[in-house]
Amino acid sequence: MGLLHLFSSRQEKIDLIQEKKITTIAYEQIQLSDGTQPVRKPLSQIGGRLVAQIGAHLMQNDAGGKGVLLGGMGGVPPAEAVVIGAGVSGTAAIQSLYGVGAHLTVLDTDLDALQVIHETFPGVATMVSNPNNIFRATAYADLVATCILIPGERPPIIITREMLKGMKPRSLIMDISIDEGGCLETSRPTTHEHPTYVEEGVIHYCVPNMGSAVARTSTYAFLNAAFPYIREIAKKGSADAIDENPAIEMGAVIIKGELKKLSSSKASVEEGE
Amino acid sequence: MGLLHLFSSRQEKIDLIQEKKITTIAYEQIQLSDGTQPVRKPLSQIGGRLVAQIGAHLMQNDAGGKGVLLGGMGGVPPAEAVVIGAGVSGTAAIQSLYGVGAHLTVLDTDLDALQVIHETFPGVATMVSNPNNIFRATAYADLVATCILIPGERPPIIITREMLKGMKPRSLIMDISIDEGGCLETSRPTTHEHPTYVEEGVIHYCVPNMGSAVARTSTYAFLNAAFPYIREIAKKGSADAIDENPAIEMGAVIIKGELKKLSSSKASVEEGE
Amino acid sequence: MGLLHLFSSRQEKIDLIQEKKITTIAYEQIQLSDGTQPVRKPLSQIGGRLVAQIGAHLMQNDAGGKGVLLGGMGGVPPAEAVVIGAGVSGTAAIQSLYGVGAHLTVLDTDLDALQVIHETFPGVATMVSNPNNIFRATAYADLVATCILIPGERPPIIITREMLKGMKPRSLIMDISIDEGGCLETSRPTTHEHPTYVEEGVIHYCVPNMGSAVARTSTYAFLNAAFPYIREIAKKGSADAIDENPAIEMGAVIIKGELKKLSSSKASVEEGE
Amino acid sequence: MGLLHLFSSRQEKIDLIQEKKITTIAYEQIQLSDGTQPVRKPLSQIGGRLVAQIGAHLMQNDAGGKGVLLGGMGGVPPAEAVVIGAGVSGTAAIQSLYGVGAHLTVLDTDLDALQVIHETFPGVATMVSNPNNIFRATAYADLVATCILIPGERPPIIITREMLKGMKPRSLIMDISIDEGGCLETSRPTTHEHPTYVEEGVIHYCVPNMGSAVARTSTYAFLNAAFPYIREIAKKGSADAIDENPAIEMGAVIIKGELKKLSSSKASVEEGE
Amino acid sequence: MGLLHLFSSRQEKIDLIQEKKITTIAYEQIQLSDGTQPVRKPLSQIGGRLVAQIGAHLMQNDAGGKGVLLGGMGGVPPAEAVVIGAGVSGTAAIQSLYGVGAHLTVLDTDLDALQVIHETFPGVATMVSNPNNIFRATAYADLVATCILIPGERPPIIITREMLKGMKPRSLIMDISIDEGGCLETSRPTTHEHPTYVEEGVIHYCVPNMGSAVARTSTYAFLNAAFPYIREIAKKGSADAIDENPAIEMGAVIIKGELKKLSSSKASVEEGE
Amino acid sequence: MGLLHLFSSRQEKIDLIQEKKITTIAYEQIQLSDGTQPVRKPLSQIGGRLVAQIGAHLMQNDAGGKGVLLGGMGGVPPAEAVVIGAGVSGTAAIQSLYGVGAHLTVLDTDLDALQVIHETFPGVATMVSNPNNIFRATAYADLVATCILIPGERPPIIITREMLKGMKPRSLIMDISIDEGGCLETSRPTTHEHPTYVEEGVIHYCVPNMGSAVARTSTYAFLNAAFPYIREIAKKGSADAIDENPAIEMGAVIIKGELKKLSSSKASVEEGE
Repeated sequence: MGLLHLFSSRQEKIDLIQEKKITTIAYEQIQLSDGTQPVRKPLSQIGGRLVAQIGAHLMQNDAGGKGVLLGGMGGVPPAEAVVIGAGVSGTAAIQSLYGVGAHLTVLDTDLDALQVIHETFPGVATMVSNPNNIFRATAYADLVATCILIPGERPPIIITREMLKGMKPRSLIMDISIDEGGCLETSRPTTHEHPTYVEEGVIHYCVPNMGSAVARTSTYAFLNAAFPYIREIAKKGSADAIDENPAIEMGAVIIKGELKKLSSSKASVEEGE
Repeated sequence: MGLLHLFSSRQEKIDLIQEKKITTIAYEQIQLSDGTQPVRKPLSQIGGRLVAQIGAHLMQNDAGGKGVLLGGMGGVPPAEAVVIGAGVSGTAAIQSLYGVGAHLTVLDTDLDALQVIHETFPGVATMVSNPNNIFRATAYADLVATCILIPGERPPIIITREMLKGMKPRSLIMDISIDEGGCLETSRPTTHEHPTYVEEGVIHYCVPNMGSAVARTSTYAFLNAAFPYIREIAKKGSADAIDENPAIEMGAVIIKGELKKLSSSKASVEEGE
Repeated sequence: MGLLHLFSSRQEKIDLIQEKKITTIAYEQIQLSDGTQPVRKPLSQIGGRLVAQIGAHLMQNDAGGKGVLLGGMGGVPPAEAVVIGAGVSGTAAIQSLYGVGAHLTVLDTDLDALQVIHETFPGVATMVSNPNNIFRATAYADLVATCILIPGERPPIIITREMLKGMKPRSLIMDISIDEGGCLETSRPTTHEHPTYVEEGVIHYCVPNMGSAVARTSTYAFLNAAFPYIREIAKKGSADAIDENPAIEMGAVIIKGELKKLSSSKASVEEGE
Repeated sequence: MGLLHLFSSRQEKIDLIQEKKITTIAYEQIQLSDGTQPVRKPLSQIGGRLVAQIGAHLMQNDAGGKGVLLGGMGGVPPAEAVVIGAGVSGTAAIQSLYGVGAHLTVLDTDLDALQVIHETFPGVATMVSNPNNIFRATAYADLVATCILIPGERPPIIITREMLKGMKPRSLIMDISIDEGGCLETSRPTTHEHPTYVEEGVIHYCVPNMGSAVARTSTYAFLNAAFPYIREIAKKGSADAIDENPAIEMGAVIIKGELKKLSSSKASVEEGE
Repeated sequence: MGLLHLFSSRQEKIDLIQEKKITTIAYEQIQLSDGTQPVRKPLSQIGGRLVAQIGAHLMQNDAGGKGVLLGGMGGVPPAEAVVIGAGVSGTAAIQSLYGVGAHLTVLDTDLDALQVIHETFPGVATMVSNPNNIFRATAYADLVATCILIPGERPPIIITREMLKGMKPRSLIMDISIDEGGCLETSRPTTHEHPTYVEEGVIHYCVPNMGSAVARTSTYAFLNAAFPYIREIAKKGSADAIDENPAIEMGAVIIKGELKKLSSSKASVEEGE
Repeated sequence: MGLLHLFSSRQEKIDLIQEKKITTIAYEQIQLSDGTQPVRKPLSQIGGRLVAQIGAHLMQNDAGGKGVLLGGMGGVPPAEAVVIGAGVSGTAAIQSLYGVGAHLTVLDTDLDALQVIHETFPGVATMVSNPNNIFRATAYADLVATCILIPGERPPIIITREMLKGMKPRSLIMDISIDEGGCLETSRPTTHEHPTYVEEGVIHYCVPNMGSAVARTSTYAFLNAAFPYIREIAKKGSADAIDENPAIEMGAVIIKGELKKLSSSKASVEEGE
């Protein structure tokens, strides 16, 4: 069992699980009654945290970028970063970009989330997320991070190919939602080896499972979060754990080979009959 | 003797002083060997500090402004403020605008000053001050404050009428250098009663001696700074004080009716023979 | 439809609405199950935010004030500001006064709210709100802001005429609760044109609908917050929207001419049959 | 050789040094051309840093104090602390008191020093130091720290017995200048064993060489600062080191038994002929 | 009735209460439906706040400590402080230790609590609390504070005698949980007069009811929190108050002499029949 | 003329310059009377700023690192970073590492510099730089940055091969002094294409002219700083500029083919006779 394979399983694997009547609990789908997903949360945070350091790297000349320092310096204005989505990974991305000194614009549909960002990060501009504002903000951005996660749903397409044409040449978009399918019309999964491609002059970074770039930290974070559930399942057996703990039941995507629900997330614990 | 009349004396008064062979020490001209003017400094700071509160007021609808809150809020981006000059009054203006949450761009010709601003105020953009950058920054500004003071010289014209045409309608310029003659082609002194006028669609605020708006604070600040010199002059007499203290000598603009140098600043202490 | 008329309708208007059997939804009365009023909230925040800039202006000599800079400076202590009520508008007022450097005392009956203020704003003094403490705090205040809102109720009188006599001459009280009737024995609504009057030597500022001073920002903030409800009402019709969404039902103060409840807030959307 | 004996030598010892024609270099008197004393500086800082923790302890009931938490809490205002002197030890005292949440008033005769405090520590009130302001500030203080050091001079008496009568009962004064003779009319040296006494109802703390309370930290700090000079003296011999390094010469208070200058500080290195 | 006797009653007293059929309400046991104990909370906070000032004092040489300044200074690293438990008192302890500049490691079993600490206090290391991590952290600690409170339960033993052997000599453990029985194998209650003892070379501080060291602040904090309940009980009588207010019912540990539940906390209000 | 070739010239080029009696001014050697080098300074800052982002990248698994997030997260302690040298580039490195949340230890031989770091960056440990402390700090480091610049001298070797053996496997050293020859026994220049190599199990990053990784920002920073000198040389000719401006004279490393001094920095402006 390991974190790094969480999202990599393919259809054949699912077929095999179903055929063998295996019960599969997707840790990242474990969900408390208030809707939070305690195991997914630290992984989302790591994804967000990585936005600044991977984004900064990709903007270096030696990585094919514009050769710009995100935070600027005395006499050189900082880069313009735009974060769409102020949830768990979006807030982590904002923190990391704020920490390196980028100038930030944050969009979300949730006014309360924007208010929290407004109060926590002085100087950050906030806008209600809608196509008009997304178009305006991306047009002046050097770096855009899309951090949208709607539990149990594929994220919507919020940046169209048309919008890309309004962006600055060699600007960078990081689609942090790529794990769930991405929210750009033009996004497709890439790898840590070949993380970027260019569409309409805009550099795209769409690596799923970003956390594997810092595997040691991710593993600790995952184990910290998952351990109480792992222990419960080990102690009770998966059947009883699913019965008795509704949070674990939410994560049981395949019960004895029967597919409870199919989402983009895959199984991480597999238990034979 | 009072702070509020520092800059209000007219030619007739100067003629009278000369005729009566009076010795006049301009407190704000007292200057230490390192070039700092210890009595002028707190007055410059007050001027800078007032930029945010007077600017905020002038941007209210009831004062004829755009009806914009400088700091924005969750879902509404902050106003863009541009401060030209990062000296004593400029830094005070930056502090005050930063404190209310405006997004700031700061220009100066001194890179070290910009570096200090860059490190002290996270998120503030800094640019080298030159006509090109001034044009770029004023074009997106909601509020511009010009805070240039060159000791003993009239400040240069850094914003031309032509530049105003590139600015947003109903944006606001506060010429904090107006005490020394102003640094806009279009600036002319106004009063606290009628503080603003419009040129090229841009609201101009050009009230000299801004500190008189908070006369109580200004008086304390002035007395705190001037008291050591007032005491020295009272004890020694003006002649000996001028002889013995080079800082006071710098402030003696008229000695026994003879005009040592004529700058825009006027006398504040008058002593008959 | 516009924000600026939210609170201005008079009895005749209400009579007309009732006569014509109009259904009226007061946006600011829309209320979620946890008691928060999502449309009123940003307007309350703007009111609070304006406390520092309007208060600072009113303390200027040219506005009839004491001539004091709220934040003080090196050698001149800051002004003493007292905020009563640490809810939405109170917290916004605290932020704004803290940002300009005033020394703050905050009173509330809710200890948890005071604890949050204590931790968020280092150096701010907090006190349990009761007549004794209000008397003590107002006695040393240069500026008092009363920010009490009890949903669905007229705020209580917390500052009596007697208490005013203990205050410093020319100190300033801003009654942010005036929209709901005010919480001073001596408060009565004023206008942006003539915002203040003096009782017992204390300057009173009691302008309802403060947000109209920054109408552009207020309009954006209002639309950001109200838009989801406007869209829902437009799509479903007011009858269905009221039936299906309990938050909207809370805001429906007049249904087909029948007055559901009469509070100080008035209707903002009017829909004929 | 040790830090803890720096200030403990008595007249007999000095007589002996003179008789034996010993050369004595007082490390804390080593002085650079800009007037700073590099070895004394960290010791002054430690003295200042200890103000908050020793003051907090002395205000506990079990130490005979008022039973007050310096920082207050939600619903209980913080204690009022007054620091007189914003030099090296004063600034360290301010930092420490600010860090624990006390409300601070700082007095100094140097406006620039006050301005730095004003900008570095938001919410701290600053006043020009004069008898009138000292009287006003001590009257509302719960804790007063006097941190005045005039190199080569005994500090002046700035708090008279008369002033004590205006202070609150059981308030606390810490005379950090006691090493140089103290700046209270009523101060006399105490010990870590019996650190306090009461005059006019005010608790006095006057322990010289406060740093010995944290001897390990003080020793490191002393050695860090003194080591370059110790090495130079060891290498060159004291005569040459005094000749060649003016900073060391400043510290040589007794040269071959001849008393160069007598200040309150005593010798720390003793070298026989 | 007073705060300082809350925890001091002995078995004879309980027997007497039972015999006389007295109803006893333990204020610190009053509990809201969300599990928070509104009267205990400020007392827990005071305990936590005192950790830095009492810990700093105990580390002074004159109090028998290592002679170390918690915050270090330029050239001397800060002390290492470890806080176990990030609840109400733990968070207050963290704030106080952070404010004096100690380097902090925080352990808790609750990941969300650790995340809050991680975001609120930059530079603080966080670890999941388990025996392995507690052993690692205590091994490098200069000061350990255990702040564990499980409502209605005795806290578990988390630091064994064996662990102490891995700690640095003369390091300090403060058992803030001692009110509820302590969470060290080696902890036993001490007094403000003789607050510490040594086991395995580690200094133990185990004073119950720490808040009495700042009795004035504690009394205000207690009254602020308890007053609404005191008033309700006084108005309704204890029987009705217990019946009508479930929060008060939670605090009624002895009803008419019948012991509802026996916890380590004792009665603070006693009402005869 | 361009920034990126500043350090790339080889011996043949120098020979050619000498043969052709060319006058060469090294911009980065221009030096003011106080010893600061105004053109080198922003380049040093950029080098320091890049430490966090390049270091963070190199610690990713996909770059061959340990897979660790510098800032850690809730439940995962941050990485330990050690910066040796608190000058211009060192301070920039500290800022950048502090901004991403690493835990920092800073070493320098200058106590005043350490004191500034101690006060500016709460929680950072500071130590006097000597072989013993360097050994102690590198032993627990995940990332070490050496930022030593002694104007006109090759930096000393401060980390020996022997010391590397005490370091953790796969830890990372970034030798920011490599431009001037490096301060590790084991350092040798690398390139942006192949930036690292391993010695004694420790990853070495030794890319000279780091700023070229963000060429656009570096070019602006260079031009901002050099432009006043470029203009002066263009206006006066190199001979007069060297004669009249001592700062420029300091930068004239080859005058009419005569080598004034040979340092590791090379010419950037070449002017034929």
